[in-house]
Amino acid sequence: MIESAKYAVFGAGSWATAIVKMLCENLDEVGWYMRSVYTKEHILKEQHNPSYLSSVEFNTEQLKLSNDINEIAEWADVLFFVIPSAFMHSELEKLNVDIKDKIIVSAVKGIIPESGLLVGEHFHDIYNIPFENIAVIAGPCHAEEVALERLSYLTISCADPVKAQAIANRLSSSYINTKISDDIIGVEYAVMLKNIYAIAAGIAHGLGYGDNFQSVLMSNAIREMKRFIKKVHKMKRNINNSAYLGDLLVTGYSIFSRNRMFGNMIGKGYTVKSAMMEMNMIAEGYYATKSAYLINEKNNRKSRLPIIEAVYDILYLNKDPKKVFNKLTEKLD
Amino acid sequence: MIESAKYAVFGAGSWATAIVKMLCENLDEVGWYMRSVYTKEHILKEQHNPSYLSSVEFNTEQLKLSNDINEIAEWADVLFFVIPSAFMHSELEKLNVDIKDKIIVSAVKGIIPESGLLVGEHFHDIYNIPFENIAVIAGPCHAEEVALERLSYLTISCADPVKAQAIANRLSSSYINTKISDDIIGVEYAVMLKNIYAIAAGIAHGLGYGDNFQSVLMSNAIREMKRFIKKVHKMKRNINNSAYLGDLLVTGYSIFSRNRMFGNMIGKGYTVKSAMMEMNMIAEGYYATKSAYLINEKNNRKSRLPIIEAVYDILYLNKDPKKVFNKLTEKLD
Repeated sequence: MIESAKYAVFGAGSWATAIVKMLCENLDEVGWYMRSVYTKEHILKEQHNPSYLSSVEFNTEQLKLSNDINEIAEWADVLFFVIPSAFMHSELEKLNVDIKDKIIVSAVKGIIPESGLLVGEHFHDIYNIPFENIAVIAGPCHAEEVALERLSYLTISCADPVKAQAIANRLSSSYINTKISDDIIGVEYAVMLKNIYAIAAGIAHGLGYGDNFQSVLMSNAIREMKRFIKKVHKMKRNINNSAYLGDLLVTGYSIFSRNRMFGNMIGKGYTVKSAMMEMNMIAEGYYATKSAYLINEKNNRKSRLPIIEAVYDILYLNKDPKKVFNKLTEKLD
Repeated sequence: MIESAKYAVFGAGSWATAIVKMLCENLDEVGWYMRSVYTKEHILKEQHNPSYLSSVEFNTEQLKLSNDINEIAEWADVLFFVIPSAFMHSELEKLNVDIKDKIIVSAVKGIIPESGLLVGEHFHDIYNIPFENIAVIAGPCHAEEVALERLSYLTISCADPVKAQAIANRLSSSYINTKISDDIIGVEYAVMLKNIYAIAAGIAHGLGYGDNFQSVLMSNAIREMKRFIKKVHKMKRNINNSAYLGDLLVTGYSIFSRNRMFGNMIGKGYTVKSAMMEMNMIAEGYYATKSAYLINEKNNRKSRLPIIEAVYDILYLNKDPKKVFNKLTEKLD
């Protein structure tokens, strides 16, 4: 079944658009669900997404576009969810098709606020999808570079290696190298945590710390991430693989990362509320910070997470970023 | 003795100037040897180094300046060598003072070409200095940020922790955090290898690879560095500590790194010779590449070092960067 499976993407942001592009390199037809009627009509008429990666031209004969989530969910066998975690719940509420025999691929970064679950857990717990039918895609991968066909690497994690490899094959091309992994939980947490560290990098930059400190911050962040993930899901993994360290670096060093930008505004003195209003959106790392903090609070033996705690104190307890970072610098090495 | 020891710096580049600044925060008098009479006179007259970090003002009453390496070597107890590895041999040939009872601190990045030895080994083998009197400073630390008093972290490695801590105390200040380590050999190799990876990052950039690939390259580089160092000096170390990973990142991501700049020119099509002439200097990583390659060649069981080998093939075998990197991308993950 997996070889002849039909693939569909849910979402129309830049990462969703990049994934559709990758799949179009290998498939005759790709399903694509999006909320916006305008976006759909624009793609049909102009062959590109009007709002994201608009330089990417699609052959619309390859696209099965729809504004009806159920139509696409019914049609496809492999469902890529590429929707911000904050909107996942409201989108999934529209589903009335039974998806328990489908394969779910999550490209959502973070925890679904309403359930407090990772996307994989959410599909497993609420839609009865077995873990061997759930996969996660991780970078390091800016969608903008996929648009430019610059060489990028993806890691596809799934408990079932045959499915992971089949999905990887559908994404691979001259500019996409893929590898597979069985550490779905670890990779999902890594994807979530990196956004918190990107906020921290932004705050540091906003406060006037330089490149020397940034590299110390990243070096501490990867060690902190290792401790966190080991505690929640102990298994043999090399935290320096691309899906963990590489993804942390591409986000933490990116001046285009929305999480880093959000942190930068906080560091420069914006309140959390005004930074969110100014950005006209909520950075994924904002929710991730609370989720990560609470997960650690629930542990009997807490992990040492000085960076996550510092970001939490600033975002949720309204503590002064300058003072919090002053203290943080003493905890790093 | 160590508490009342006299400290001196040998060299007058940007890193040497930054170290003099750090020591001046804690000591009444700092020895400073430099070859150039002009530089010495300029510092005495204008209170700053004319060529490097010229924004840093010195209180010349704190400085014991000399163009005579023997005068300063005789006077000081703790000798910081901060001279490019390519000039170490010719500078040290001027020494006729017995330094076997001195403490040597190396801030030299790389291997001394004439002896093929790490700086620590060189002092040990040729000057009979016991290893417990040899220390190494590692960043991550751009000298330029020390000039701006931006918070930076240094690791001081020495087999004798009391000496490491004493030196660390002399370097610490409101903008310098220090830690100590006993992995002097591992840190020296890390400092050397990072420059090769910075060249690789520059070549990739010059060839048009983007941020996604850069993060994959760094994630592979730290794993390669771990394999290399483990083979030459096996001990328990966390390769993600600042002295290894942090230093790799600050160099590999710096657009000011001379090694990265050198690589960038190679990637853009300059020959090795023309890139060197254009830069008016030889990047440390150029020598490091050959040294690292030869060290691995001598091993009975070689480490897998795809990045170092790719850089070696380009710099020393004149292979086409584009083709070499095409092949390299298949070896990374």
